[in-house]
Amino acid sequence: MSKIRSYESFYSKNRDLMLERVNEAYEVFKKTKTYEYPKWLYGNPIGKIIKLEVEDNPNFGDTAYIEMDSARTAFLSIDMQTDFCGKNGYVDVMGYDLSLTAQALDPIKNALDVVRKTDMKVIHTREGHDPDLSDAPFNKILRSKIIGQGVGIGEIPKNGLGRLLVRGQENWDIQKDVYPIAGEHVVDKAGKGAFGSSTLHMLLKNLGVTHLVISGITTDVCVHTIMREANDYGYWCILMKDGTGATDYDNHLAAIKSIKMQGGVFGNVTDSKKLIDAVKTAFANKS
Amino acid sequence: MSKIRSYESFYSKNRDLMLERVNEAYEVFKKTKTYEYPKWLYGNPIGKIIKLEVEDNPNFGDTAYIEMDSARTAFLSIDMQTDFCGKNGYVDVMGYDLSLTAQALDPIKNALDVVRKTDMKVIHTREGHDPDLSDAPFNKILRSKIIGQGVGIGEIPKNGLGRLLVRGQENWDIQKDVYPIAGEHVVDKAGKGAFGSSTLHMLLKNLGVTHLVISGITTDVCVHTIMREANDYGYWCILMKDGTGATDYDNHLAAIKSIKMQGGVFGNVTDSKKLIDAVKTAFANKS
Amino acid sequence: MSKIRSYESFYSKNRDLMLERVNEAYEVFKKTKTYEYPKWLYGNPIGKIIKLEVEDNPNFGDTAYIEMDSARTAFLSIDMQTDFCGKNGYVDVMGYDLSLTAQALDPIKNALDVVRKTDMKVIHTREGHDPDLSDAPFNKILRSKIIGQGVGIGEIPKNGLGRLLVRGQENWDIQKDVYPIAGEHVVDKAGKGAFGSSTLHMLLKNLGVTHLVISGITTDVCVHTIMREANDYGYWCILMKDGTGATDYDNHLAAIKSIKMQGGVFGNVTDSKKLIDAVKTAFANKS
Amino acid sequence: MSKIRSYESFYSKNRDLMLERVNEAYEVFKKTKTYEYPKWLYGNPIGKIIKLEVEDNPNFGDTAYIEMDSARTAFLSIDMQTDFCGKNGYVDVMGYDLSLTAQALDPIKNALDVVRKTDMKVIHTREGHDPDLSDAPFNKILRSKIIGQGVGIGEIPKNGLGRLLVRGQENWDIQKDVYPIAGEHVVDKAGKGAFGSSTLHMLLKNLGVTHLVISGITTDVCVHTIMREANDYGYWCILMKDGTGATDYDNHLAAIKSIKMQGGVFGNVTDSKKLIDAVKTAFANKS
Repeated sequence: MSKIRSYESFYSKNRDLMLERVNEAYEVFKKTKTYEYPKWLYGNPIGKIIKLEVEDNPNFGDTAYIEMDSARTAFLSIDMQTDFCGKNGYVDVMGYDLSLTAQALDPIKNALDVVRKTDMKVIHTREGHDPDLSDAPFNKILRSKIIGQGVGIGEIPKNGLGRLLVRGQENWDIQKDVYPIAGEHVVDKAGKGAFGSSTLHMLLKNLGVTHLVISGITTDVCVHTIMREANDYGYWCILMKDGTGATDYDNHLAAIKSIKMQGGVFGNVTDSKKLIDAVKTAFANKS
Repeated sequence: MSKIRSYESFYSKNRDLMLERVNEAYEVFKKTKTYEYPKWLYGNPIGKIIKLEVEDNPNFGDTAYIEMDSARTAFLSIDMQTDFCGKNGYVDVMGYDLSLTAQALDPIKNALDVVRKTDMKVIHTREGHDPDLSDAPFNKILRSKIIGQGVGIGEIPKNGLGRLLVRGQENWDIQKDVYPIAGEHVVDKAGKGAFGSSTLHMLLKNLGVTHLVISGITTDVCVHTIMREANDYGYWCILMKDGTGATDYDNHLAAIKSIKMQGGVFGNVTDSKKLIDAVKTAFANKS
Repeated sequence: MSKIRSYESFYSKNRDLMLERVNEAYEVFKKTKTYEYPKWLYGNPIGKIIKLEVEDNPNFGDTAYIEMDSARTAFLSIDMQTDFCGKNGYVDVMGYDLSLTAQALDPIKNALDVVRKTDMKVIHTREGHDPDLSDAPFNKILRSKIIGQGVGIGEIPKNGLGRLLVRGQENWDIQKDVYPIAGEHVVDKAGKGAFGSSTLHMLLKNLGVTHLVISGITTDVCVHTIMREANDYGYWCILMKDGTGATDYDNHLAAIKSIKMQGGVFGNVTDSKKLIDAVKTAFANKS
Repeated sequence: MSKIRSYESFYSKNRDLMLERVNEAYEVFKKTKTYEYPKWLYGNPIGKIIKLEVEDNPNFGDTAYIEMDSARTAFLSIDMQTDFCGKNGYVDVMGYDLSLTAQALDPIKNALDVVRKTDMKVIHTREGHDPDLSDAPFNKILRSKIIGQGVGIGEIPKNGLGRLLVRGQENWDIQKDVYPIAGEHVVDKAGKGAFGSSTLHMLLKNLGVTHLVISGITTDVCVHTIMREANDYGYWCILMKDGTGATDYDNHLAAIKSIKMQGGVFGNVTDSKKLIDAVKTAFANKS
């Protein structure tokens, strides 16, 4: 490594400045249990400050708060497609209990009812493959066929609505109750994650988003993968836990708990009631 | 969408070809419980074919096998740093039981003993931040300070070996027992994942890797994130489960189980004994 | 940095091995002016070896050759859309001479005629934005409106076929002469590049591609950006220069020359005649 | 495609809102030739507004202005290493005229003298490879050896300072005149680009950067590649043209011109004098 790399004094300037800012936020947190909106980083808020109650990461069971700028917050509804929570879709064909993933529908619907009255952004994602299957890895299709007992991605199950996980098929579409409306955004992705192979990262940048409230299915797969990607880039991620679900209930619970390890290794956890209360409170104070 | 997108015939040619290949592999799997090495995709193997026993994804408890080309397989040892499994490192300061992550050491060491005698590639990763902390998101540092009761990333804990999670510090270095040796590769990364912000993806490409045997810590955080990224690109990922560990044992178990959902949504699961047996068998047949 | 980083002996093993392989290839090149297909890296070819004549990078004007495996080579046709080379499309509205970009049509068509008879892959890309424009940066749209004298991306020009650069519009579609046929692949992208925000990288991985013959428009913008991205990952990139074009002829020429600097900083340069000859020769030997 | 995709009304809401904002900015531009700082997107500025004179993209030869928030602007100095502009470095060994790249030194130094007195961020990049060469593609090393007449990446040229393009070697270090000082950032990268394989994108996000003033070498290779990547994500990129240089003067000129095509397809162009004037003016008004 270059000489520059060994000079403590070179690094200490930025480090000390950052640690000072962290320390200020830490002192605030100790007193108020609140992750304050960091104006030094994002400037003054453009919309309303929403103060959202979250489960406390350091001492599970306690309560903490996170502040976010409504105009720079996106509500993510991930893969709420028939393929993941509806009859004769991908997850159904694999034999999983649909109620485990479908449980996310009502909380998301309730959250959307409130979020849609504000300047928060709403983004829906859809997992699916090009009808020629060229963006689906061979092993992904093969594994789906084995678990589906002969019917996998790209094939039409008995009584199915169309080819599994294929863009444009009815089963691939988003469930009616949480269907996108005008003014919302839809991102298609071929993988479990989205940052390196879809327009999601671009979209977040174009919208000026700093905070993400994340819902959708399945908790331990697509939801967690996208949350990890966004968290690595410093986005503040908050999982709305009742608006999620997994093919296995224990995995669902562990996925939620995992977020809170290490002081919030992937962000924070809230629920739809807390989100709705926080948004209503923020916008009641509007005048 | 363009007219091209609606023509079933346009898509069916590639789709049918892919489904035919998948079906052939499916028939083989039904008979042999083996994911055969796909020569149509990678060509003839360059090294030895290793036939590795893995836990069966579709019907947990059964057994399956996966074939891989030794010369195109990488053994990944993720973040086996003092900060994650040693005294006075990052995880220790947060108050977690070190034995949960340190349990990965022996199985990895045992696997390395055998892998190092072959043409398999060995890649170590290290999580850490630039000494000026500029590649650490503000919220990551803040959360670490809260869980660390005032001592977080970039700071020196009482009796600490150096600044937590900072590149070049003693605590950031890899544990002696699984230390890299000549001929192995080391990748530094600032995030939990590695594909979009380190040279790992580039390295896999330069090495011609198709299969990854993944070990390291922590199971539900960095190990899972990198496994997800690689899996989305079609790499065959196999977790060596006893060579992993997490800050919470239930999260560790759930992370392993999660891989096997949906027929292997993130790949397969094996252990160090199975890996060692498979490698020894493959290379015993060498002559 | 860790102690490991300072030990010359740690690094020398891999380095010496790599330099030995490079030296072997260098000796071959000195004698034969040929970049041989590197079997040590990719294994034996799956298809036919195509020996393609390219312009010599080190000593412009000379001739060199590059070997590629037909089954692992993709022919890329980038953004051959009405918006970039047809009447009343985006480039036309900006006032550029259409013949500069439309010149790419015939050479691509001629190359496709031959390539389509082989096992080479064909990939088409399309630049375009979601109809809600959310994947188009604000400054991109603004700049297009200024150069378009009031009509930019997302708007319908006088006598236009649809909204400029918007997916699904007639002007966004690929030109008839080089339209995709069954068995070929189409990738949509929102940016000039494609690797971090489309499925292109995933597709190349799924197809097992190692070599890319690149055509399309515009030479200095999308063609060069994708070539740079692929080259950074070690893909062998060869520009088919007569199958390209730019909005400015000098920029077109410089973009070609730029590839050849530093011994081929972005790859190699060929033309459609050379490609056709090489493919025909390789497949004439088929029996 | 899903029904949602065909409903014009679904898309028109976001589109119309965006086009309205673009139109407002367009009207301002027509009157003032100024790309105003978009407060609707980034909020109020945190630092000082710098109004930077740039070459007008639509009608080359005219003048335009771009406003940026000093606290959210990064000055990039790309690859000002001995390997690219110093004696016995990589570019020198390849036989290029060093004065073509070394010309960037003085303008960058002059700009840094002024920028360093403000809250603008300064980021330096370094291209280089791991000493084991594993992050260098085989074809990159091979090509460098051919153009270097037997001495390429990883090797020590006659009278050389160390191994070419290898991290930690003297030739790889940044030139003294523009050496990083405390408070600045350094990003290492293995490719010509940086977004998918280094921490640069992460760093820009952590620093809250919206605008980039780009300098460094070489104009048509690393400078252009990074500019393209950032531009695709909506960063406002401005090339400081006299603080750049290429191995070929015509390619240098074409790279600059290429930026200005299509109304600024990769951003804008300025020079060090204009930047210095703009920064001085902005900070003279500080009180």
